[in-house]
Amino acid sequence: MDYVINTSLVQQHNAVLRADLEADYAALAGTLARRGQDIEKLTTLAQGFQVALPSWGVGTGGTRFARFPGVGEPRNVEEKLADCAVINQLTGATPLVSLHFPWDKPSDPKALFERAKSLGLSFDAVNSNTFQDQAGQAHTYKYGSLTAMSAAAREQAVQHNIECIELGRQLGSKGLTVWVGDGANFPGQSNLRGALERYLDSMRGIYAALPADWLMYIEHKLFEPAFYATTIADWGTSFACAQTLGEKAKCLVDLGHHAPNTNIEMIVARLAQFGKLGGFHFNDSKYGDDDLDSGSIDPFQLFLVFNELADAALRDGPAFKPAYMLDQSHNVTDPIESLMSSAVEVQRAYVQAALVDRIALAGFQEANDVHQAAQTLKRAFRTDVSPILAMARMRSGAAVDPVACYRTVGYRAQKAAERPAKAGASGSGIV
Amino acid sequence: MDYVINTSLVQQHNAVLRADLEADYAALAGTLARRGQDIEKLTTLAQGFQVALPSWGVGTGGTRFARFPGVGEPRNVEEKLADCAVINQLTGATPLVSLHFPWDKPSDPKALFERAKSLGLSFDAVNSNTFQDQAGQAHTYKYGSLTAMSAAAREQAVQHNIECIELGRQLGSKGLTVWVGDGANFPGQSNLRGALERYLDSMRGIYAALPADWLMYIEHKLFEPAFYATTIADWGTSFACAQTLGEKAKCLVDLGHHAPNTNIEMIVARLAQFGKLGGFHFNDSKYGDDDLDSGSIDPFQLFLVFNELADAALRDGPAFKPAYMLDQSHNVTDPIESLMSSAVEVQRAYVQAALVDRIALAGFQEANDVHQAAQTLKRAFRTDVSPILAMARMRSGAAVDPVACYRTVGYRAQKAAERPAKAGASGSGIV
Amino acid sequence: MDYVINTSLVQQHNAVLRADLEADYAALAGTLARRGQDIEKLTTLAQGFQVALPSWGVGTGGTRFARFPGVGEPRNVEEKLADCAVINQLTGATPLVSLHFPWDKPSDPKALFERAKSLGLSFDAVNSNTFQDQAGQAHTYKYGSLTAMSAAAREQAVQHNIECIELGRQLGSKGLTVWVGDGANFPGQSNLRGALERYLDSMRGIYAALPADWLMYIEHKLFEPAFYATTIADWGTSFACAQTLGEKAKCLVDLGHHAPNTNIEMIVARLAQFGKLGGFHFNDSKYGDDDLDSGSIDPFQLFLVFNELADAALRDGPAFKPAYMLDQSHNVTDPIESLMSSAVEVQRAYVQAALVDRIALAGFQEANDVHQAAQTLKRAFRTDVSPILAMARMRSGAAVDPVACYRTVGYRAQKAAERPAKAGASGSGIV
Amino acid sequence: MDYVINTSLVQQHNAVLRADLEADYAALAGTLARRGQDIEKLTTLAQGFQVALPSWGVGTGGTRFARFPGVGEPRNVEEKLADCAVINQLTGATPLVSLHFPWDKPSDPKALFERAKSLGLSFDAVNSNTFQDQAGQAHTYKYGSLTAMSAAAREQAVQHNIECIELGRQLGSKGLTVWVGDGANFPGQSNLRGALERYLDSMRGIYAALPADWLMYIEHKLFEPAFYATTIADWGTSFACAQTLGEKAKCLVDLGHHAPNTNIEMIVARLAQFGKLGGFHFNDSKYGDDDLDSGSIDPFQLFLVFNELADAALRDGPAFKPAYMLDQSHNVTDPIESLMSSAVEVQRAYVQAALVDRIALAGFQEANDVHQAAQTLKRAFRTDVSPILAMARMRSGAAVDPVACYRTVGYRAQKAAERPAKAGASGSGIV
Repeated sequence: MDYVINTSLVQQHNAVLRADLEADYAALAGTLARRGQDIEKLTTLAQGFQVALPSWGVGTGGTRFARFPGVGEPRNVEEKLADCAVINQLTGATPLVSLHFPWDKPSDPKALFERAKSLGLSFDAVNSNTFQDQAGQAHTYKYGSLTAMSAAAREQAVQHNIECIELGRQLGSKGLTVWVGDGANFPGQSNLRGALERYLDSMRGIYAALPADWLMYIEHKLFEPAFYATTIADWGTSFACAQTLGEKAKCLVDLGHHAPNTNIEMIVARLAQFGKLGGFHFNDSKYGDDDLDSGSIDPFQLFLVFNELADAALRDGPAFKPAYMLDQSHNVTDPIESLMSSAVEVQRAYVQAALVDRIALAGFQEANDVHQAAQTLKRAFRTDVSPILAMARMRSGAAVDPVACYRTVGYRAQKAAERPAKAGASGSGIV
Repeated sequence: MDYVINTSLVQQHNAVLRADLEADYAALAGTLARRGQDIEKLTTLAQGFQVALPSWGVGTGGTRFARFPGVGEPRNVEEKLADCAVINQLTGATPLVSLHFPWDKPSDPKALFERAKSLGLSFDAVNSNTFQDQAGQAHTYKYGSLTAMSAAAREQAVQHNIECIELGRQLGSKGLTVWVGDGANFPGQSNLRGALERYLDSMRGIYAALPADWLMYIEHKLFEPAFYATTIADWGTSFACAQTLGEKAKCLVDLGHHAPNTNIEMIVARLAQFGKLGGFHFNDSKYGDDDLDSGSIDPFQLFLVFNELADAALRDGPAFKPAYMLDQSHNVTDPIESLMSSAVEVQRAYVQAALVDRIALAGFQEANDVHQAAQTLKRAFRTDVSPILAMARMRSGAAVDPVACYRTVGYRAQKAAERPAKAGASGSGIV
Repeated sequence: MDYVINTSLVQQHNAVLRADLEADYAALAGTLARRGQDIEKLTTLAQGFQVALPSWGVGTGGTRFARFPGVGEPRNVEEKLADCAVINQLTGATPLVSLHFPWDKPSDPKALFERAKSLGLSFDAVNSNTFQDQAGQAHTYKYGSLTAMSAAAREQAVQHNIECIELGRQLGSKGLTVWVGDGANFPGQSNLRGALERYLDSMRGIYAALPADWLMYIEHKLFEPAFYATTIADWGTSFACAQTLGEKAKCLVDLGHHAPNTNIEMIVARLAQFGKLGGFHFNDSKYGDDDLDSGSIDPFQLFLVFNELADAALRDGPAFKPAYMLDQSHNVTDPIESLMSSAVEVQRAYVQAALVDRIALAGFQEANDVHQAAQTLKRAFRTDVSPILAMARMRSGAAVDPVACYRTVGYRAQKAAERPAKAGASGSGIV
Repeated sequence: MDYVINTSLVQQHNAVLRADLEADYAALAGTLARRGQDIEKLTTLAQGFQVALPSWGVGTGGTRFARFPGVGEPRNVEEKLADCAVINQLTGATPLVSLHFPWDKPSDPKALFERAKSLGLSFDAVNSNTFQDQAGQAHTYKYGSLTAMSAAAREQAVQHNIECIELGRQLGSKGLTVWVGDGANFPGQSNLRGALERYLDSMRGIYAALPADWLMYIEHKLFEPAFYATTIADWGTSFACAQTLGEKAKCLVDLGHHAPNTNIEMIVARLAQFGKLGGFHFNDSKYGDDDLDSGSIDPFQLFLVFNELADAALRDGPAFKPAYMLDQSHNVTDPIESLMSSAVEVQRAYVQAALVDRIALAGFQEANDVHQAAQTLKRAFRTDVSPILAMARMRSGAAVDPVACYRTVGYRAQKAAERPAKAGASGSGIV
């Protein structure tokens, strides 16, 4: 039997930290009360927050130069689910898992669904993969998939996506995320307009196979693996395609997929305004699609994204429900630790955004009081809501300090023993 | 009477260079013929090319740090037209002038129209200006114009645009270019979505005043003068707004208005595909909106833009008619020289794009012969079409070497004498 | 007599906020104590922090497109000092002012020195200006100053710098900051190597005039006003020049003067390591040299800069004394408010950096415990030290909430009455 | 016996193209003569040009997402040399090969040296590899190599470099290129200054082992594989390290290793001026270290780099001898074709730079005639020197059209038969 973390171990961990947490919580409660804010509402909000995990994120990632594997890495989808369950157990914020096919293709979808359920997990959007050739594949994607000149390669890619939908349907998923790296490395390699026409044609085939209650998420990315022109390179293209395809097509924003200096929170605002904001792949980056831990490089940007989301929720009401997912590559950390911390960082931004006094803010904006408007956001961002997040976890039965708890119980060491490395195993932390 | 360049002086200039030009032309004709291409067709094409001049471009530009004026700068719209006429006389490629109001506001539009006509000029799209406060203006644009919180400021900006349309109508223009610097310098300063809603509301008012045969050009820009968020920051926003407003609203691409590393020719392809490519502001840049001479920093990029335009023209036929305009700031050169050279550079890219063997290119693309596809573009770009451009000018009665001719006849020195500098004149070369 | 803020008004303001501040301070003290940290040490540190003010920062800035002046702007150096004194009175953190010549050139330096002293101010490094032509100037800087081809222009620029040193000497300054915009807008405009040779030659002349106890600060900047190549574009060039010139030449880092994606804190570490870190111009930016309020766009980056400074101070001891200065352009806010908030933001980063447990950090680094090392910095950054900063101000006799106090006493309205705008006044917030 | 291209096949190819080439050459000779330039001098120059090949470049590269291998890829260093020999045979410009250890580690260096000699090849600088873990390696480089906290890992990396020197010595190489990906993915992961201290300490150990007539090339890179901070991230750091290490340490410029918007030709000028320009890794890029074919994205930039090199050669004479090498990743093209075209592109820039009229240029610069100075460079760049390059090849016994010749003789098909793919072969086109 696989090692799982016994609930009593989490309780022991929490018992040790409880007194300090309660003192910190009380201190923050007082400070917030003096500003007219009720800490309990925020804690309840925090408890309700969820962000999905990428199944591929629990393995060690790498670059084109090298991958340095860790110990105890999951070797199949069942072991990935086990790791995801631990992350959810300790953070209380990640009950959803996003699968990637064919990497995670189950021989028995129903069994996988049940296994996930028994671990307290269910399945978020499924991901297709047409950026790699699989062993035995009839047509290569070297020159593109949904946009390939070869009709056979395009059709193969369409059918793979349709198969993903079918698998997802059996697993209880309600969405398909389509990211393709298709593009060109050189001017002239492909006709830029022709490539998008073929993309739209392929996507119409996939769209037609979507169940009525599903959404399709179109993910744009500036570059890599294509280095001159990427077919779905920016939100404008993603938006135009989503419009062309129909109601169920939405745009997915990965924080690392934009040109330098881009104002990402404004893209969020635009997509929300025009009804096409589907969801997020959260991570952080300094240069390109670095896939670093969420909030590790520019935490204020993450807050500003959630500030837009809070604004949109206020305007659009319960109909506004973008999908939240982590998507990171963990090259030098324990993936479980990075995913736990990242889930907490995203949750932190969500709670900080809830701290913004939106009535005051609107007043300052109305009055062109630029200084006070800016300070209104900064004040919320500066608030250290850590005690709120920890209290939310304790109340939900998760760990006050997820990483400390995880280390204390020795989960990784157990898995290192249970899961000897496969010889030659590589594969990289992707998207 | 103002000094104008006598036609005979141009002819004298050409006579001196004629023999060498004919030899170079014959040499190139032979080389092209060996590749199966007919130089005469290209020369005819070159003769038909036109790019509009910005009235504000004939003055010396500057930065926020300083402006270093030149001598003989035009002091009013009539003198600007005189300079534009010389540029057209010597290049044969710039019979259109784009005016900017209120800078160029004529007291007698009909007289200005006649004056332009007598100089061989007519008027391209007119430009509104709501990024500066004019003396005596009722409402400031410090906090925005079409997006201002103040309804009065917005209405003032709308009325100014409508007045521009009316002036343009009297001058024979058929388009209005709307660029606003509106945005925010700080997170929180404005509600990003609210600002765009106000923008659209204002623009609907302007759109309603457009004559039936006019187009409205929406110009996006990443940043400056706003340094955190610009309301119309990217082509995606411009596109969504143009769609919202209607058929007569199109997107205008200024080559210097994008994030670092952006593939601009792909934006051109996208806007063409979705029917919203309105036109261009040509210039070049290395960092931001540097407004350098067209083709001076990245001539291959300019070629790639025209490569997309040639592709779109082939697909869409005569209906595809984007507007071409130069928009540069001449800080350290004689503005007339820079505009002449820049017009020639844009024309060069147009002719080079016509050299692309599109049937061969399509074949290489179809066959995934990436190397040969890329080389097909490079071969066209590498071709030095200077003799074609010079021959086109000579045949059209313009100058074989416009800058050399301009210097020889001493135009600037004449103007320095005729136009003593106004004390305290500043104002910068803008957009 | 000019309006000054009476001390009793500040005390009244503080009296109102005192109880809440003490409660917040006690709450934070408890939380810090539970982490093993002593709030009183931090408060003492905060009280000792100083950052200089730029004399030009108290006026409203602008862009090449427009400047929208505010009311009550200072019209001469004496009025600038008055505004600076208020900033120092309310923040307790800005007793130094940096002057810019010839803008601030005093007719009687001794009188200005005394006036500053009476206001509690003294003078930081002085700044030369060879990026603009002054009325009546013999040689233009249109084509460069310290790097100009014209020997006369170079000599004029050198002499101006020497005059700045002499003025600074009389004012008690101990440093000269040299920023030149010299460069090229086009490939070929200048010989890149020749320009730097001339720069070094000019700088040797200035260096020779430095008093023994002075430092010379070389400021690099990627671009603007030159748009193709800037002679002192990066820290590498600044460093090589400082090495060439000698011991008294140091490098000055302006946070907004780097290429996109640059890791600025690493530049700080490098310059400290090689003994050439002279000081800072603090501000924030999203795109270029946006000159926004410090910490307004990327507060974590500001913290990381101070994290390097704390590390260097630990290594190098009291000999490590970089100069701190604000350098911002206030286009849409009250400059006094922006400068007060910015001084507080820089102070905040300084205190947060002091919160880093450097022994624990070194241990995690030694053990390659990447996750905990990263969290050690994040934990310090997340701490809301606002009560420490406010308590430091109250104890120093400054205002608990500087902006609120400033608004309450009506300083700007008083100045609007005292200082009617000069007709045609412009000039922009620069560097 | 391995297939090699028979000389007579190349002669047959040339015979077919000879007449057209001679006509094109004569046409260009006339045009150049009319400008006062002698085509023969340029052709002689072109014949003397050499650029080294990277041994790893003859295999298909990839990204972290996928590698799509081609057919007939070389499976060992001997097969790589065979491919390099063909490139040199057909271009006449690439007689040097740069090896990468341990990838190319020969069991018998003397035999490899002889084999290369028999193919007309010799060895350029050798490259060490401490960015990957090799099977059986004692200490991991997961957390760095020359900068690792682990003294054992550092020592292992130093010893590997010393072993590379010894291998290179036996192979006739005269240089060692050191690129390390060492750095951090998160703020706090490593002490930025400590890491550089350890780097310098390790490098001193390697430097001490350099033979007297060797150079050490330090290669900087902004990011990847480290995504927050790279120890040798920019030319400033590389320069400071080269200075610290001594005379034999030089800086190597890879065109794809800089921040967006960086003026690379100015870095070249700076390193030349301060005596530390060691050499180049040529390639092209649009986003990051894209490793695309040289001159494929921004050919004008490549020309401007050679313009600086021509200026430095003029100033510094024969002592100025930077090393030229291609370093590209060929993901979607036949690597042999890309390397041939890229060698020609670099040679093209070299010849175009030789076309610059440097006396005229200096005169325009002296006179601040910005327009004509810029046009002087543009005129040289616009000249299509293809006939010169082809004639140089024909005269040297290489192919008039290397790619056409290579295809005609069917080299790749022969190799596909001779070299069946190794199962599971991957490895990516690196650096």
